[in-house]
Amino acid sequence: MTNLVNRRDLSFLLFELGGLEALFERPRFAQHDRETVESMLDVALQMAHERFADHVAKLDANEPSFDGERVHIIEEVGAAVREYIDAGFLAASFPEDCGGMQLPYMATQALTSVFTAANPSSMGYPFLTAAAANLLRVQGSETQREQYMRPMIEGRYFGTMCLSEPQAGSSLGDIRTKAIPRDDGRYQIQGTKMWISGGEHDLSENIVHLVLAKIEGAAAGSKGISLFAVPKYRIGADGQPGERNGVRLAGLNHKMGYRGTVNTVLNFGDGEDCIGELVGQAGKGLAGMFQMMNEARIGVGLGATMLGYAGYLASLEYARERPQGRLPGDPDPSKPPVMIIEHSDVKRMLLAQKAYAEGALALCVYCAELIDQQEAPRDEAEQARATALLEILTPIAKAWPADYCLKANELAIQVHGGYGYTRDYPVERMYRDNRLNAIHEGTNGIQSLDLLGRKIPMKGGALLKTLLEAVQADLIAARQAGLDELANALEAAVSRLGQTTQRLGAIGAEHGPDRYLSNSYAYLEQFGHTVIAWMWLRQARVAQLALASASGSDLDFYQGKLHAARFFYRWELPKTVQWAELLESADDTTLRMPAAGF
Amino acid sequence: MTNLVNRRDLSFLLFELGGLEALFERPRFAQHDRETVESMLDVALQMAHERFADHVAKLDANEPSFDGERVHIIEEVGAAVREYIDAGFLAASFPEDCGGMQLPYMATQALTSVFTAANPSSMGYPFLTAAAANLLRVQGSETQREQYMRPMIEGRYFGTMCLSEPQAGSSLGDIRTKAIPRDDGRYQIQGTKMWISGGEHDLSENIVHLVLAKIEGAAAGSKGISLFAVPKYRIGADGQPGERNGVRLAGLNHKMGYRGTVNTVLNFGDGEDCIGELVGQAGKGLAGMFQMMNEARIGVGLGATMLGYAGYLASLEYARERPQGRLPGDPDPSKPPVMIIEHSDVKRMLLAQKAYAEGALALCVYCAELIDQQEAPRDEAEQARATALLEILTPIAKAWPADYCLKANELAIQVHGGYGYTRDYPVERMYRDNRLNAIHEGTNGIQSLDLLGRKIPMKGGALLKTLLEAVQADLIAARQAGLDELANALEAAVSRLGQTTQRLGAIGAEHGPDRYLSNSYAYLEQFGHTVIAWMWLRQARVAQLALASASGSDLDFYQGKLHAARFFYRWELPKTVQWAELLESADDTTLRMPAAGF
Repeated sequence: MTNLVNRRDLSFLLFELGGLEALFERPRFAQHDRETVESMLDVALQMAHERFADHVAKLDANEPSFDGERVHIIEEVGAAVREYIDAGFLAASFPEDCGGMQLPYMATQALTSVFTAANPSSMGYPFLTAAAANLLRVQGSETQREQYMRPMIEGRYFGTMCLSEPQAGSSLGDIRTKAIPRDDGRYQIQGTKMWISGGEHDLSENIVHLVLAKIEGAAAGSKGISLFAVPKYRIGADGQPGERNGVRLAGLNHKMGYRGTVNTVLNFGDGEDCIGELVGQAGKGLAGMFQMMNEARIGVGLGATMLGYAGYLASLEYARERPQGRLPGDPDPSKPPVMIIEHSDVKRMLLAQKAYAEGALALCVYCAELIDQQEAPRDEAEQARATALLEILTPIAKAWPADYCLKANELAIQVHGGYGYTRDYPVERMYRDNRLNAIHEGTNGIQSLDLLGRKIPMKGGALLKTLLEAVQADLIAARQAGLDELANALEAAVSRLGQTTQRLGAIGAEHGPDRYLSNSYAYLEQFGHTVIAWMWLRQARVAQLALASASGSDLDFYQGKLHAARFFYRWELPKTVQWAELLESADDTTLRMPAAGF
Repeated sequence: MTNLVNRRDLSFLLFELGGLEALFERPRFAQHDRETVESMLDVALQMAHERFADHVAKLDANEPSFDGERVHIIEEVGAAVREYIDAGFLAASFPEDCGGMQLPYMATQALTSVFTAANPSSMGYPFLTAAAANLLRVQGSETQREQYMRPMIEGRYFGTMCLSEPQAGSSLGDIRTKAIPRDDGRYQIQGTKMWISGGEHDLSENIVHLVLAKIEGAAAGSKGISLFAVPKYRIGADGQPGERNGVRLAGLNHKMGYRGTVNTVLNFGDGEDCIGELVGQAGKGLAGMFQMMNEARIGVGLGATMLGYAGYLASLEYARERPQGRLPGDPDPSKPPVMIIEHSDVKRMLLAQKAYAEGALALCVYCAELIDQQEAPRDEAEQARATALLEILTPIAKAWPADYCLKANELAIQVHGGYGYTRDYPVERMYRDNRLNAIHEGTNGIQSLDLLGRKIPMKGGALLKTLLEAVQADLIAARQAGLDELANALEAAVSRLGQTTQRLGAIGAEHGPDRYLSNSYAYLEQFGHTVIAWMWLRQARVAQLALASASGSDLDFYQGKLHAARFFYRWELPKTVQWAELLESADDTTLRMPAAGF
C-alpha cells in the first residue's frame, strides 16, 4: 500500500507547528479535542485507501462519458462519495445549526488532504458541493439555505460554480449569460457556461448550479454581474426536486488529467424555461462569488500540494527499493548495486519534492488556521490580521503549489526512470492531474495580477505590512532556537521583497499600470519563494526545539525537516535575488516585444 | 494548418548563422547546394503536414496493441514511414556508396526536425533504423553491412537498440543478457531487454536488434559488454529473411506519451534458439554502442526541441486569435477585449517558449555542423576541435532541451488556458510526449554525471578549454556588431563557469569523487544555460548585422531574434549565478541527507 501522506507530518503541522489545540479553547470549537481529530485522521486515511485510492487508476482510464442522454461515471465514484458524506466529512466544517460538525477548518483541511491525495477526481464532487453550500450559507436567503444548502450538506444535492463562458474565461466582466426578470421575482437564465466541473451526472438527487449572469440592463463589466441559484430540478411545493429545469448538457470536455471529475459545457434556457433565483444583492455577484473563489483557490492549492506529496512518497518508496548503480567513490562492479536513494542526485530529487510538498502543505494548513481565526476570532484585531494575511496569501497558496508541486511530480517520474513514464505507476497520472491546477480558479498569471495589482496596493500597503510583522515574530523565535543562518537568509529575502515592492510602486507612479504589472509573474515567484521559506523556517524551529528530547523515528522526522529546510534555503531561496533584480531593473522586455516579432 | 516550425528560422540557422554553404565546398558534399536543401525542406514540410501531422492525434488515442500474436499499429504509420523512406529522407545522410544521398548531417537534422515536430511517435521508427544502420556502417563487418545495413537504409528492415534490462536501466555494467559461443562463430543470446522502442511490429520485412550482452566468462562491469546483431528473421542463404529467430515480445509498455512508438519488453532465447552475430570486437560493445548513443542523444535533444517549438507556434497562433481581457492601463469594459498576445504575461510565456525552443534548435544545428566537421574535416585540427566540442556539448544537447522545451510545453498549455488542457488542442499531447526526453538515452541525471564526471576531467580539461575558445571568438564578433551588453553578460557567465569548474576540481581533490559529483545537476544547469546564452549571442549578432538592410517580415524576424536574446539574458542567464554559488560553496545538503530523514 502506497503512502498517501506522511501521517506524522499531519500531526506535526496541526499540533506542533500549528495551533489547532489553541482553537479548541474557543467556544465555537470547544466540543472537539486533539484525540477526536487524530482518530478522524486515521479513519480518513483508511477510507481514502480503501474507497478512493482503489479506483483512481480505473477512473482515469474510464473517464465519464455522455451517450446523448446521460452521463456515465464508474460506479465506484458515487459509492465512495456517499460513504465520505455518510461519515460526516463533507459537513465537518459547517456549523452545527446547519447540520455540520463545527470542526475547525484547519482540521477539515487535513482530512481533505488525505482524500485528495488518494483521488482528486472523485473528491471534486464533494469539494465543489461543500464550497457551493458554504456560499449559500453566507450569501443565501433563509429559504435558499433551507431549500438548497441543507440538502447539499446532507449530500443529497451536489453543487457547481458556473463562471466561465466560451468567450470569457478569466475576464468575467465579459460574460454574456442573461437573467431576465420574471413576474414571480425569479429570473429566466439564458446563456452558455464553460468548464463546469460536476455540471451533469446522476450521483445526486439534484444539482444546484451557482451561476454568474447579468440582469438585463445591468452595467457593463464586472459591476453588472449577479449571482443566481439554478437547480437542475426545480423545487416543488413539497420542498422536493420536481420538474426538470432548462439547464442542459451541451458537451463534455476531455482533459489530459483530472479525468474523473466530469467537466461540462452547459446551456441555460436554450429554447426552454431555465429559472434561477437571485442570491444576495443584484450587481454584487462577483463579490459573493469571490468568497467561494477564495476558498476554492486555497482548495486548489491544497489539491496541487497533495498530488505533489503523494508523488513524493511514491517515488520515495521506489527509491528505497530499487537497486541500481554504485557510488562514484566505490564503483567496483563486483559489488552489488546500491538502492538508488543512496545516489546524491536522487536525494536531490527527493529533497526537492519534500521541500515543495511539505512547504506547500504548511502554507495550506497555515491559511486554514487563518480562516478559523477569521470565522471565530478571539477579538477584532485578530480577525483583521487574519483577513489581511489571507487576502495577501491566497494567490500564493493557489499558485505556488500549482507550479512547484507540479515540478515535484515531474521529479517523481524522473526518480522512477522509465517506469514512472508508464501507466503502471501512479506518478504519470498525478503529473497529468496536477497540470490543471495552474489553470483553474484563475490562472496563475491572474493570481500574479491579483497579488501585485490588487493585494499590494490595497489599504495603502497594509496587507504586506501585516505579513512582514508576522514573519518578524518568527525570525525572533527562530534565532532563539539557534537557527541564525536560516533566519538571516529569510530576513534578507524579506527585506529585499520590501525593497522590490517599493521600487515597483515608484515604477508604477512614473510609468503607469501597464509597466507596473508587466513582470507580475516574477513578483509572484519572488513573493512565493519568500513565503515558503518562511514556512520552512517555522517548521525548522519546531523541529530544532524538539530534537533534544526526540528519539527513534521522531528523531529521523525532525532531522529530515531540518534537512529539507536547509535544502530550500540553499537551492531555492537564492532564486529570489534574480527575480528581485529583474523587477527592480524595471525590465521591459516582455512589455515591448512586438506581436510581429514572434 | 498549424505551423510545425518557422521555415524562416530553419534557413536562418542553416545559412545565416550556420555554415551549411561552407560545407558544400568540401568534396564530400560538393554535389549539394543551398537550393537543393531549401527545396527539400519545402517538400519535407509539406509531407510532414500531410502524412505525419494528419494522424498524430489518432495515433496518440489509438496506441499500438498486442493481441497475443501480433502488434497492431494504425495503418497511417506504416504508410507515412514508407513515403518518408521512398522520398529518400532516411538515407539522406548516408554516404553514396551505402545507398545514401551524402547530405551533410546539418541538413538532415533540419529535415528531421520538421517531421519530428509533426509526429515524433511515427518518426521513432525511421530514427532508430537510421541510427542502427549507422552503427553497423561504422562497426559492422562487410557482410553485416551488406546483410543488415543496406536493407535498413533501403527501409526494408527496421532497427532497434537493446541496452536496458528490467534490473539494469542506467547501469549497463549490470546487464545479465548472455552470449554463448556457438560452433559456427555466432552466439546464442539469452536474456530480457526492457524499454525497446520499435521492438516488435509488422511495418518492415525484418527487425535488426542491436543488443548488448556479455559473452560467457567476460569481465564484470562494462568491460565485459559486447554488441550483437540479432535479427527477428535469420538471413537465409539467398540473403533474404527466412527462419524466425528466437527473439519474442514479452509485453508492451504503456506510456503517458510517445504512445505511437511501440515500446516493448523482449525475451531473447527463452526456450528456443536466438542467434546473434558479434558486431565489432568482443568486450568493446559499450564503446561501439556509445557512437550510436551520442547520435541518439543529440536526436533526443532535437526531438525535445521540436515538441517545444511546435507547442510554441501552436500557442502563438492561439494567442493571436483569442480575444480576452483588457490592458491594465485601459480597462474600460465597454471597449472590446484585446487579443491575449497583447498581455505582458502572455508575451512572457511566448518569449520564454521562443527563447527555449529557438535557443535549443540553434544548439542542435550547431552540433550537427560539428558532426559534419568531424566526419568530413578540412584538416586534423578542425576534426579534433569538432570532436572535443561534441564530446562536451552532447550531454547539454540532450538534457537542456528535454528540461526547458518541456517547460515550453507547460507554458504552451498555459497560454491556451483551459482549452490547452483538453485533448482538442495538440499542446497537452506534446507535453506528455516531451516528458519522455529527460528519461531515455540516459536520464538527465546521467547526463550531468557524464558532463562533470567524464567530459570535464577528460584530457586534463582540454574539452572545456576548446569550448571557451569558441565562445571567445563569438564574444569578439558580437562586440564588433555592437552587442556589448550581451557580450559582457556572457563573458561574465563563462568566466564564472570556469571558476566554478576549478573550484569543483579543488573540492574533488580534497574530498573525493562523491563530493565532487554530488551537485552535478546544478553544474549541468549552469553549464547548459551558459551554452544556450552563447547560442543566443550568436543569433543576436547575425540578426543585428542583418537589421540594417532588412525590411518587412525579415525586419520583424530579426527584431524578434534580438528580443528573444534579450529575454534570455534578462530572465534566464542570471540563474547561473545561483547555481555557481551553490556549487562553489561545496554544499553538501543532498549528500548528507540520511535516507531515514525522508
